[in-house]
Amino acid sequence: MTLTPFETGALWVVLLVAVAGLAYAAFLRSQVMREETGTARMREVWDAIRQGADAYLRRQLGTILPFIGVLTVLLFLSVYVVPPSPQAVERFAGYDPGTVRLIVGLGRAIAFIMGAVFSLLVGQLGMRMAVQGNIRVAAAARSSFDRALRIAYRSGTVTGMLTDGLGLLGGTVIFMYFGKAAPDALLGFGFGGTLLALFMRVGGGIYTKAADVGADLVGKVEKDIPEDDPRNAAVIADLVGDNVGDCAGMAADIFESYEVTIVSGLILGLTLVHLTGDIKWIIFPLLVRAIGVFASIVGTYRVRGHSDERGDAMGAINRGFYTSAAVSIVGFALVAAFYMHEWRAFASVVAGVILAIVIDELTRYFTDGRYAPVREIQRSTDGGPATTIITGLAVGYESTVWAVLVIGATILSAIAIYWSYPVASLADKVHYILYGVAMTGIGMLTLTGNNVAMDSYGPISDNANGIGEMAGLEPKARQIMADLDAVGNTTKAITKGVAIGSAVIAAVSLFGSFVADVSMIDPQALANGIRVSEPMVFVGLLIGGSVPWLFSSLSIKAVGRAAGLIVQEVRRQFRIPGIMEGTVKPDYARAVQISTVAAQKELVSLATLAVMGPIVVGLALGVEALGGFLAGAILSGQLLAVFMANAGGAWDNAKKLIEDEPRDLARNTGKGSERHKAGVVGDTVGDPLKDTAGPALNPMIKVVNLVSLIIAPIIVRYQGISLGTGLVIVLALAAVAWAIRTSKREAPAFGAVGAEQVAASASGSTPPGGLAG
Amino acid sequence: MTLTPFETGALWVVLLVAVAGLAYAAFLRSQVMREETGTARMREVWDAIRQGADAYLRRQLGTILPFIGVLTVLLFLSVYVVPPSPQAVERFAGYDPGTVRLIVGLGRAIAFIMGAVFSLLVGQLGMRMAVQGNIRVAAAARSSFDRALRIAYRSGTVTGMLTDGLGLLGGTVIFMYFGKAAPDALLGFGFGGTLLALFMRVGGGIYTKAADVGADLVGKVEKDIPEDDPRNAAVIADLVGDNVGDCAGMAADIFESYEVTIVSGLILGLTLVHLTGDIKWIIFPLLVRAIGVFASIVGTYRVRGHSDERGDAMGAINRGFYTSAAVSIVGFALVAAFYMHEWRAFASVVAGVILAIVIDELTRYFTDGRYAPVREIQRSTDGGPATTIITGLAVGYESTVWAVLVIGATILSAIAIYWSYPVASLADKVHYILYGVAMTGIGMLTLTGNNVAMDSYGPISDNANGIGEMAGLEPKARQIMADLDAVGNTTKAITKGVAIGSAVIAAVSLFGSFVADVSMIDPQALANGIRVSEPMVFVGLLIGGSVPWLFSSLSIKAVGRAAGLIVQEVRRQFRIPGIMEGTVKPDYARAVQISTVAAQKELVSLATLAVMGPIVVGLALGVEALGGFLAGAILSGQLLAVFMANAGGAWDNAKKLIEDEPRDLARNTGKGSERHKAGVVGDTVGDPLKDTAGPALNPMIKVVNLVSLIIAPIIVRYQGISLGTGLVIVLALAAVAWAIRTSKREAPAFGAVGAEQVAASASGSTPPGGLAG
Repeated sequence: MTLTPFETGALWVVLLVAVAGLAYAAFLRSQVMREETGTARMREVWDAIRQGADAYLRRQLGTILPFIGVLTVLLFLSVYVVPPSPQAVERFAGYDPGTVRLIVGLGRAIAFIMGAVFSLLVGQLGMRMAVQGNIRVAAAARSSFDRALRIAYRSGTVTGMLTDGLGLLGGTVIFMYFGKAAPDALLGFGFGGTLLALFMRVGGGIYTKAADVGADLVGKVEKDIPEDDPRNAAVIADLVGDNVGDCAGMAADIFESYEVTIVSGLILGLTLVHLTGDIKWIIFPLLVRAIGVFASIVGTYRVRGHSDERGDAMGAINRGFYTSAAVSIVGFALVAAFYMHEWRAFASVVAGVILAIVIDELTRYFTDGRYAPVREIQRSTDGGPATTIITGLAVGYESTVWAVLVIGATILSAIAIYWSYPVASLADKVHYILYGVAMTGIGMLTLTGNNVAMDSYGPISDNANGIGEMAGLEPKARQIMADLDAVGNTTKAITKGVAIGSAVIAAVSLFGSFVADVSMIDPQALANGIRVSEPMVFVGLLIGGSVPWLFSSLSIKAVGRAAGLIVQEVRRQFRIPGIMEGTVKPDYARAVQISTVAAQKELVSLATLAVMGPIVVGLALGVEALGGFLAGAILSGQLLAVFMANAGGAWDNAKKLIEDEPRDLARNTGKGSERHKAGVVGDTVGDPLKDTAGPALNPMIKVVNLVSLIIAPIIVRYQGISLGTGLVIVLALAAVAWAIRTSKREAPAFGAVGAEQVAASASGSTPPGGLAG
Repeated sequence: MTLTPFETGALWVVLLVAVAGLAYAAFLRSQVMREETGTARMREVWDAIRQGADAYLRRQLGTILPFIGVLTVLLFLSVYVVPPSPQAVERFAGYDPGTVRLIVGLGRAIAFIMGAVFSLLVGQLGMRMAVQGNIRVAAAARSSFDRALRIAYRSGTVTGMLTDGLGLLGGTVIFMYFGKAAPDALLGFGFGGTLLALFMRVGGGIYTKAADVGADLVGKVEKDIPEDDPRNAAVIADLVGDNVGDCAGMAADIFESYEVTIVSGLILGLTLVHLTGDIKWIIFPLLVRAIGVFASIVGTYRVRGHSDERGDAMGAINRGFYTSAAVSIVGFALVAAFYMHEWRAFASVVAGVILAIVIDELTRYFTDGRYAPVREIQRSTDGGPATTIITGLAVGYESTVWAVLVIGATILSAIAIYWSYPVASLADKVHYILYGVAMTGIGMLTLTGNNVAMDSYGPISDNANGIGEMAGLEPKARQIMADLDAVGNTTKAITKGVAIGSAVIAAVSLFGSFVADVSMIDPQALANGIRVSEPMVFVGLLIGGSVPWLFSSLSIKAVGRAAGLIVQEVRRQFRIPGIMEGTVKPDYARAVQISTVAAQKELVSLATLAVMGPIVVGLALGVEALGGFLAGAILSGQLLAVFMANAGGAWDNAKKLIEDEPRDLARNTGKGSERHKAGVVGDTVGDPLKDTAGPALNPMIKVVNLVSLIIAPIIVRYQGISLGTGLVIVLALAAVAWAIRTSKREAPAFGAVGAEQVAASASGSTPPGGLAG
């Protein structure tokens, strides 16, 4: 594997672009930090949010670090179970075997830490930036729409460029050092980022919804006071939650997709390098990424309002997006023409860009109030909460079908693009096709800088609005912030679609890498591919398909338990004399503390499930069944994730449609009507689905794939466990899980708080009869 | 393939047992018909139900017949596209090729009609019997619990024995005539039954829930009158619905599983006959079935109450069940020891019996009010409808994971049982394992007679209760019927679990037959098995996995539309002076008519989806991708079906728990409390999930598998469509579907009725902004 001088130069340019992206982020940050921070009352509210966010981050670090520590050691030690790959031996040919082993082990461990730290940095710095942005947007809204928009978007762009810069930097550095031995370390890098994203997604998702549901259930429903009312003890926790969930969680999630697509792109690229001897297949994805970063810098900087009173925030954001898209497509074409000498690479990257746009449009169709599905839910509120829920379920079910078809069409297009490629065997062709799929993923995430900026913009303007409400700002400023906030809801929904789509494409690429990787370790192990027609593999498929359902069930219940604790606390504080009158300040920190602790507590079991699942299946049922497991997890994960995200989004916007109706209780329209109440029920049901369970599946499906890739060498070697032993292991684990499940005294779930006396009186009644009775 | 005299004799005995089952059904029927029919007022109500049921059946026949006609012709003509199998040529060796072709074509067409007619008979006769039983149970309840129970259970047993008898008869006759050429005709037989079951499940499911939801929304919610109140115009439609959905639909569904398991058992048995030259592999499943029928006759006849006042109906039913189980296991052991000389066959059949029991227990755990999950939902009603729904979703999600694990363990046990079987190659071993899976399915449905009896018992006692309410019977009789009815809810839930479990096992066996069958047609076509690691196959998996979601979305929406029409009609009738006062009789027939027409209208698109889906995928993407499609459909179908069934059941029973609490509005307990209202919302959401969408997936996953088996020879021959053409076809179809989806003016869905003015006023408001704006 030799680089031409051009290629060596190109790699350095890529590295330079990555650094430029980071520098641009630093530049934007300094711009934002120069803005003023408003009144003393605003700063007071903001201080509470900042402290809450910091407390969450500190606490989360405490939960994550032991996990990271243990896994780092295990990853390092794994080279002493399975020797380094032949590629690694070749790359470090000058060293004795012991040293090579050490280098590879250290490389994997360090890359893992690097992935984890980068992911953490994106999440934490991005969230801190968002918190800094909040108050400055609120302050700027007092004078100008244009300035408020610019500050909000640029604060978000800081996170976007961090994602871009760190993602590109990590992959490039690893590749430059390890060369053809890169997969070993790249897997560690990907796994670190993905695991952190899982933690931040799940933790953030539980936190934000527990605080939100808890605040609403007592404040809006029981006490009938408005959202963001300063008398509500959970209101700061709610605002912190927006940052923790939508900002840190989403940023880590997208960072991780960004990282994993380049990891799988490089791994699949290396198989083509093996086949062809030409190194362009791995240089290309790095160049594409660099072009994307450059395009994002150009496009995001163009986003600003015009100095009219109520500007068009969405229009401005879109202008930036389309500028970036145009710049990058031109760049791709140049690279394809003058470096790849190939139209196929260009076609698959552009297919990714198209995929992103189509998924955007689909998400919009099913979740935006202007289209039939949300309108149908709006109409169904006339029949009460039950019909609202049923209609939303049907809408969500349908939307996930279309999303799967789009993903299917994308894979088909990769097949179509590479079908005519002149290669010797059909088996080789599959490598090209998988490479094409990976390039689609790379293309889809080209404009990650813009996407993350758009997404972070959401919680920033939301929080600014909250600060404005709590600090009692003047109406004009409030109106500007409300406008910015409304656009934020749309941009958040769109990013969600991209996040899921890219997660699935990334997972499919990883799945492809799994087969390629196992075949390199042992050409016989998966010589027949992954045959679901084998009963054992079918069992793997079934188990894998059930994991996302279990994961969702656990995360929804976790939100319920955490929300129950918040409800209890807010109710307790409302009973303190003076709170309801507004003369005594509630203890915001306690609610923040409760939500933080509760969210962290739930993380461990979910992460363990995602990490241990593939290991158990692989060891007990063998490597081919593990492949079936992965296919099942991707399929179910995609279907469930999109269903939950879109149903949640549709309910949310149906409720908003009703709130925009003229208020007329006699005709049952507008806020406060029975229809509105039904809409609120839909929205509340959708919240944990779209903000906790759904998004948590994105990192989950990648974690199971990455874990499988990493343990593949061990499984190929030790799958010799006899069938009987495997069966016994699986049954025993299932029995233990069942025993735990049925014996455990559940912590109080949704609404159980304060209901103990009810339950106690109710349990005196006669239970219905049953077979065993 | 030669039969020993013992085997020839055995086949005739099997046939005799099948006829005995039917004779037993006729005997029970005559017993029930001799019972008295109560007061004139009772007969009046009952006449309305009977006429409604008859109207439904007539109308349904009208919808189905053209479909059946077209498919019969196509099935017959298919032999002119693809020549008969070598086995058929061998079986009819004396005839010239044209005649053989004719025989095979006719055989398949006639078997198809036979399957369809048998399924129709089970559904229609079973339902007619149930209607006859209703009134007699109500009349008997006036004098004795014992008699009422016996009549209710025996009426149900008629349907059960029809299922048993016809299922066994069909399979045996076909096998006796066609011998080794049986698969051709068996597939037709299975397809006929499955397709009819799909029609009756979907049609019945839509009918029953539309009538139920419609009646409740206006009667219970808007007008605050009790259930089954004679002033409600939809009350008869609701009672008819119980028969149409729970009785005809469920009976056809289980009949079809019963039939399909024997079809796949015989097909997979034939591959073993090929391998070993020993015919015992196909005689065995027929013997097992015959033992089951015999055991059901013995067991069901033992079900009767004791003459105490409030007897233990569940205990009596269980006594019958366990008697049958004991008889059949002894029978299996005898056959295994003295005919098979093999413990493995016995083990896999018994594994099926265990599977049925474990699935029963699982269903019970997640849906019975005595256990933690339903209690958790009960507690969550304290937080209002939203938390009730969220908790139910989490419970449903979790329950489906356990169910999948049980199915996985069953397949693993089949692997474990046959792993040590001394055969030459691993590929041959797979045939034995698949045969083991099929035998598990046969074992699971051994006690179909008892199961269907238990299930039909549900709507019969429910209807008796309704007749009692409407005819104003004395309190003592009403109490007896309420007791019978409560037990009916439990038996219905249990049967649902068995229906889904057996559907999945049957589908897995069919999936196994698919590979075996394709390999017989062309040994090269699936020489590598079905590799989801091939991108094209993975696309098939994605598409297949999405089909159950689409199917569910469509059927839920169909219920919504139909319920909307009923709501409109009931509201209209309530506006007629005198109706509310009870002085004018409502026009029950109109509501029946509306529900009937609406249900039939929705059938065609759903059936077309299930039949055309595999054909399009197979032709466009090839036979291996079609295999991926089937695997995806089974996986998603199982997960969704169990989720919907159990979540619905859990909500239903959580509501009942609250209704059993002492009524105390101050403490928010019992009927009429806010918690009860939340429980009602949960129940209403669960209704279309558990009674329409969920059960419809059982026949659906088998239809796609059977269609694939039938068209396999054509696809193997014509999959040569180039990739580009395939891609174009798929994309074009998707585009057309999307165009239809977005252009269609939706008929009014849930609650839309009467809301037009609301929607009109609402649409004047500003929609939220979006990217395209």
